[in-house]
Amino acid sequence: MIVLVINCGSSSIKYRLMDIKSDDVYDILAKGIVEKIGLPEGISTYSPAGKESRTVYLPVPNHTVGMKLILDDLVDKDHGVLKTFDDIEAVGHRVVQGADYFTGSALVNDDVLKKIEICAEFAPLHNRAHLLGIRACQAVLPSVPEVVVFDTAFHQTMPDYAYIYALPYEYYTKYHVRRYGAHGTSHDYVSHEGARFAGIDIGHSKIVTCHIGSGSSVCAVLNGKCIDTSMGFTPLEGMIMGTRCGCIDANIVPYIMKKENLTPDEMTDLMNKKSGFMGLSGRTSDAREMDELANSGDYRAKLVLKKLTYDIVKLIGSYVAAMDGIDLLVFTAGIGEHNSRLRRRVCENLTYLGIKVDYEANMASGTEAMISTPDSKVKVALIPTEEELMIARDTMRIVSALDE
Amino acid sequence: MIVLVINCGSSSIKYRLMDIKSDDVYDILAKGIVEKIGLPEGISTYSPAGKESRTVYLPVPNHTVGMKLILDDLVDKDHGVLKTFDDIEAVGHRVVQGADYFTGSALVNDDVLKKIEICAEFAPLHNRAHLLGIRACQAVLPSVPEVVVFDTAFHQTMPDYAYIYALPYEYYTKYHVRRYGAHGTSHDYVSHEGARFAGIDIGHSKIVTCHIGSGSSVCAVLNGKCIDTSMGFTPLEGMIMGTRCGCIDANIVPYIMKKENLTPDEMTDLMNKKSGFMGLSGRTSDAREMDELANSGDYRAKLVLKKLTYDIVKLIGSYVAAMDGIDLLVFTAGIGEHNSRLRRRVCENLTYLGIKVDYEANMASGTEAMISTPDSKVKVALIPTEEELMIARDTMRIVSALDE
Repeated sequence: MIVLVINCGSSSIKYRLMDIKSDDVYDILAKGIVEKIGLPEGISTYSPAGKESRTVYLPVPNHTVGMKLILDDLVDKDHGVLKTFDDIEAVGHRVVQGADYFTGSALVNDDVLKKIEICAEFAPLHNRAHLLGIRACQAVLPSVPEVVVFDTAFHQTMPDYAYIYALPYEYYTKYHVRRYGAHGTSHDYVSHEGARFAGIDIGHSKIVTCHIGSGSSVCAVLNGKCIDTSMGFTPLEGMIMGTRCGCIDANIVPYIMKKENLTPDEMTDLMNKKSGFMGLSGRTSDAREMDELANSGDYRAKLVLKKLTYDIVKLIGSYVAAMDGIDLLVFTAGIGEHNSRLRRRVCENLTYLGIKVDYEANMASGTEAMISTPDSKVKVALIPTEEELMIARDTMRIVSALDE
Repeated sequence: MIVLVINCGSSSIKYRLMDIKSDDVYDILAKGIVEKIGLPEGISTYSPAGKESRTVYLPVPNHTVGMKLILDDLVDKDHGVLKTFDDIEAVGHRVVQGADYFTGSALVNDDVLKKIEICAEFAPLHNRAHLLGIRACQAVLPSVPEVVVFDTAFHQTMPDYAYIYALPYEYYTKYHVRRYGAHGTSHDYVSHEGARFAGIDIGHSKIVTCHIGSGSSVCAVLNGKCIDTSMGFTPLEGMIMGTRCGCIDANIVPYIMKKENLTPDEMTDLMNKKSGFMGLSGRTSDAREMDELANSGDYRAKLVLKKLTYDIVKLIGSYVAAMDGIDLLVFTAGIGEHNSRLRRRVCENLTYLGIKVDYEANMASGTEAMISTPDSKVKVALIPTEEELMIARDTMRIVSALDE
């Protein structure tokens, strides 16, 4: 089945066209990204398999125009990988927030769209962008079935004491305020793939997965099911991120609002877009630039990196306690897959668990690797995340069932 | 030295009159509490050593009247323990928030009072009440030196990456927004006393202390010094408490403010006074009543107790990771000292650390006890906190130095 996997941001559309033959057998036909949508100059980068990539600079006023650009590239006479739009059998969308409306992936219909809209309240940065992407696809591919795959669905197995906040209970019943988590598709994939790679029976396993990127979360996976995760009601909670503050004392929020005379929306913006690496360093939200700054001696950049390591160490420790043990620790996502120094520093602080790093193996980057020594009591693996594959699999499963 | 130790709340004055002979040798001459200050009917309970306690019901319009009541009891012809006010050589006050102005205890003067006033911003429930108590003492005992002992001072040894939040850095430099912690006097006492009791060299030790009461915090004490603690900028952060919410996703704060149309101050009030056990159960902030409700099958009371255990387990786990190990786990304060079931449940979830509970020893309540088995890899102790003794010791030390 030929599936177009879409991950929409507020000003970007990332996509991957995949030919899924079975759960584990697939070809990537093309991938790309349209960026700076709505800005004076947009960028479209298109990479067909086996052919040269090309980047075009042009204004992309909205997501529908962006989707048309992508489709035109996919069927282009010279650079295309499809003959006609009709070859696309299904579209799968990543959606960050499905709240407790969705415990799994779903076929898009009016009711589903309405619920994604409701959930947008809980993920200010993400859900509205996903809706733009879904509607753009409906506009340009009206007869192709669309599936939504939720970052929150994997976390719906959390027990009540892990997802509830100690706030007045009516905020849970009235406003759905509870922990939802995010990156569920990634935690799901890397925990299961990590167990397979490490030769561990997922059905009897204690796994902590660290998805460390520009957004980051850590997850406790007991016997293959999520029992806790660091992101909360929204993707703000947990550890320091590119522009997000992670955990803070909640009294700080009204305190800063009063000091700076901010509205609730301005405060939300500040915590989500102006904090994290960016806010603390005052320089950049990029982890590689942070490394360079730290190497040049910048105090605040060094502080960011120390806090990043420390937040991860503490989260791992708390989830090991939550599961009363650990068999496998997994690193994934942009920083987790490529920053060997961070992985080393985290693991070197966990010798009490019997973790031993294989320093040479740990130099791996962006590839599956066992980075613990053979005598390490806990296995530590680097597993590149494959959210697109997970989305394509679920999309195929749901759309195939339609035909039956 | 005869020291009057004062712990003022917004509507109460707890006190203890101590005759301190050396750091470890002292007599308690009397103790008591004046409650419901400012309400139509106040209560004064006075317990002189070796004599009968007495409780008097009468209006106590303000803290100065309350202090006078206390002093009158202390020198009462029949029930008193002193001949005259002049026998009181020093007063020691507990102060919750000293921010980074105070790394230790201090003699009260105008500058110190001004700083406590500034710090009141960070501990809305506490510091203003302490100032009322200090001023009441100045009014009724004008010639007696007063010392302030800060709940935050012990935590001033935290490294920067443990105390900094990933917010724009200028909030730290401009507004002093950082982790300060609380219950420092208690964590200081029970970690040191716990090490002594367990025969561990505090200079080479990894200790986690759990101060669990109506306010609760957990602390990581490495080689006798605090390296991290769960309370933050204010005593709100961390775990579920009697009326405080502990850690929540910071995006929840503006979200609820908008939904409920709350001002920043109303939101602060909600998180500090209407959340925690009270908010989640909808019934009570009292841990014993919660046990009864849970035993009678109340779902939300059971949820409170499960979350209480879970929050403690995760905090212990995170601090064990922060120190890369643990030698000693200490429980203290109202709930920590008296709730053997909670201690058992916490410890039973930490078998991965080699912790084994001695079930019989764990039945101890309010007394020093080793509650781990002899073959437990980590020692677990119950150490009743002695904040008053710590305050009296510091007060004696500082006031004695004045005479030299």
